[in-house]
Amino acid sequence: MIHEVAILNIRPGTSIAFENAFVQAQAIISSMPGYVSHQLQCCLETPDRYLLLVEWRNLEDHTIGFRQSPQYDEWKHLLHHFYEPFPMVEHYEPVFVSYSQKL
Amino acid sequence: MIHEVAILNIRPGTSIAFENAFVQAQAIISSMPGYVSHQLQCCLETPDRYLLLVEWRNLEDHTIGFRQSPQYDEWKHLLHHFYEPFPMVEHYEPVFVSYSQKL
Repeated sequence: MIHEVAILNIRPGTSIAFENAFVQAQAIISSMPGYVSHQLQCCLETPDRYLLLVEWRNLEDHTIGFRQSPQYDEWKHLLHHFYEPFPMVEHYEPVFVSYSQKL
Repeated sequence: MIHEVAILNIRPGTSIAFENAFVQAQAIISSMPGYVSHQLQCCLETPDRYLLLVEWRNLEDHTIGFRQSPQYDEWKHLLHHFYEPFPMVEHYEPVFVSYSQKL
């Protein structure tokens, strides 16, 4: 499993429109082969900043399977005009993962 | 629940030492009140870059409970000398979280 990771800075004042568009966009990634999970999180310190984490079975499920698909055109159409500047997207793989024993 | 999020760039060539130190350091955060989970992930595109995600019950468990504790001094002693530059730490809260229905 790998994570696609991007800090998304969106145009000021567009967070409601962005989150509404993301509702539609997340249905697209959720249907792609190799998709495992995703999270959109908003920053507490910086307005109009989000963290996108998408878990894929492997790197190529994202870089080839998704990015070279017709669905990616829909994703871009829904979301890319919100970004300012355009985000850097990186991929990460787990080194250590741990959960509280007290929960 | 909130996430502490930091992109960690470490001094080139110190990844083995950093990961070894992190084994000790993660025992510290795991024992703190309000700790929920953590992940250390390494970047596939950029050598010596990691993503640290620590989930806390609330913001103050990190900013006050942990950062003002004696344990934070140990954490700093173990890890801070690896960072170049020193990382920006932000906090995020979930907007959308979803998992594949196919797993």
